[in-house]
Amino acid sequence: MEDKNKRTELSQLGEFGLIDEITKDFRCVNDSTLLGVGDDAAVLRPEKNRQVVSTDMLCEGVHFDLSYVPLKHLGYKAIAVNVSDIAAMNAIPKQVTVSIALSNRFSKQAVEVLYEGIRAACSQYKVDLVGGDTTSSRSGLVISVTAIGEVDETLLAQRKGAGLKDIICVSGDLGGAFMGLQVLEREKQGFMANPNNKPELEKYERIVGRQLKPEARMDIVHELRDFGVIPTSMIDISDGLASELFHLSKNSGLGMAVFEDKLPIDRMTYNTAVEFGLDPITCALNGGEDYELLFTIKQDDFGKIENHPDIHFIGYTQELEKGLYLVTKNKNVIPLKAQGWNHFNQQS
Amino acid sequence: MEDKNKRTELSQLGEFGLIDEITKDFRCVNDSTLLGVGDDAAVLRPEKNRQVVSTDMLCEGVHFDLSYVPLKHLGYKAIAVNVSDIAAMNAIPKQVTVSIALSNRFSKQAVEVLYEGIRAACSQYKVDLVGGDTTSSRSGLVISVTAIGEVDETLLAQRKGAGLKDIICVSGDLGGAFMGLQVLEREKQGFMANPNNKPELEKYERIVGRQLKPEARMDIVHELRDFGVIPTSMIDISDGLASELFHLSKNSGLGMAVFEDKLPIDRMTYNTAVEFGLDPITCALNGGEDYELLFTIKQDDFGKIENHPDIHFIGYTQELEKGLYLVTKNKNVIPLKAQGWNHFNQQS
Repeated sequence: MEDKNKRTELSQLGEFGLIDEITKDFRCVNDSTLLGVGDDAAVLRPEKNRQVVSTDMLCEGVHFDLSYVPLKHLGYKAIAVNVSDIAAMNAIPKQVTVSIALSNRFSKQAVEVLYEGIRAACSQYKVDLVGGDTTSSRSGLVISVTAIGEVDETLLAQRKGAGLKDIICVSGDLGGAFMGLQVLEREKQGFMANPNNKPELEKYERIVGRQLKPEARMDIVHELRDFGVIPTSMIDISDGLASELFHLSKNSGLGMAVFEDKLPIDRMTYNTAVEFGLDPITCALNGGEDYELLFTIKQDDFGKIENHPDIHFIGYTQELEKGLYLVTKNKNVIPLKAQGWNHFNQQS
Repeated sequence: MEDKNKRTELSQLGEFGLIDEITKDFRCVNDSTLLGVGDDAAVLRPEKNRQVVSTDMLCEGVHFDLSYVPLKHLGYKAIAVNVSDIAAMNAIPKQVTVSIALSNRFSKQAVEVLYEGIRAACSQYKVDLVGGDTTSSRSGLVISVTAIGEVDETLLAQRKGAGLKDIICVSGDLGGAFMGLQVLEREKQGFMANPNNKPELEKYERIVGRQLKPEARMDIVHELRDFGVIPTSMIDISDGLASELFHLSKNSGLGMAVFEDKLPIDRMTYNTAVEFGLDPITCALNGGEDYELLFTIKQDDFGKIENHPDIHFIGYTQELEKGLYLVTKNKNVIPLKAQGWNHFNQQS
């Protein structure tokens, strides 16, 4: 029996040994993957007439804090956020490549746990790991993922394409991942001030989960297909709703009106925002990393999904000159600002 | 007129500003690129029935030393080494994504110089920059590139596929990049010992260039097509000839015999190795980063390329049981060892 507590230094393995060890449990499931890891390049045979490619890099100390992010969750998240970009094109993810740089403070066992999360996400989203690079770094952990998806030309959704008076839709709820981060940061500060302080995370489980283990909304992509709805434009919410509305606006050449009382905010997110002295609406508008889908549909398609329990109709597109604004519960009109996640985070 | 010496801090721009600034000069040239930078994902329409995908990550302090590697060369090299992997599949590169993480010691101008090199390589190899990510890091510079290429199924070359008594070929010459690195390291040591020491690089220009600005041998890929030669197996030489021979051997299930007097070694590489007290043959066998192509051809194809000035016929494949060996000038047979570049480098 293998000793679970033993530590194998990366230097004992070398680059080739590590890659072999890590990739031996990965199996390719997609017909379009002809050859995965093991040659100078993977070999693919795309089956749809459009392919989409996205890439993201996560750096320790910037995008994640290993003092409260478990490595397995980090691996899962690295895949999920890239799959979310594929979902945002209304495409189906097929392949990923994963490159990691790590310093020698990581053991072989730590890398295996990271890849357990990667494998769990690949299995969840039915994507094949077809390549990557594993290298040492002088400092922290860096993870770079490239995701490849496929879509029929007729189903492709971009940031451009929204029409006038289209309905603006958002999946799930907003602000939860941001409030989860606030809870994690607070508990970390408490623990650093007094290591006997036990982190109180149970009562915040859902929003902490939104931060640590976000899901790409592939379920929404599949359901929209089932209902025969093709979004006229789409984007995933990584930097906050307001910021993403500006992207759709800029690319589609339209203004946007959204309604405060239509913004989907989970009860725990709402209560936690109040507890932290933050405005829940601001958290929903500017909190990042929810990885929900923001999209527009033609009014004719509204009836097809109006009863969907997890799609919310938050506003409509309008002439560009009218700008982007929020209509409050009191019918006041407030111009939106594209604060973005980083900026917002610095202020809080 | 813009002041060439001014320094713009990255924090003045933010992530979006930087990406916009950098990518505005990039133009897509390939028909298979329908949409480049600017949405959640790039949109491609592959035109051949096979696509190949490769990825590589370069880390400061591990893969490069900015005390002697100019940023422009680094950008060029990051693309070239990935294109080399596409070349090694006998495919034509079409798209790349580039993600970079950088600390705030880099200015906007430094990033622009890095991207000048990336743009020069994209232009040289006719590949489109279709995506990427720019983020801050807590420490050094990290560059992650994913390259996508296309090839007809009938032209695809892999590590497996070599036949018995195939001829082993190598392009260009070997060991130059490794000796260039030795020169750069020596001059750096001299400069650190006494900053008044001027680096003597002129007389080593060719091998220093091999290290700092390697080229992917796309010319060889195109010429083999022109001559009607399809390699039975192929790999690019990133870790040293011996290491790559082992990869072909393992994947094709064959032994290999190579001849000392057939190994292509440039005169400057040879003389510099002697000057450093190193064996030129060992440098050719185990020095990495030459990015030449190592491939096997059927004997019937020999006549088609026997007069090619830059393709060298260094040996033949044999039964697996015979192993991998070097036949010396004195007809001695020496078993090859797959030392690989890193290991070699640590010894020297």
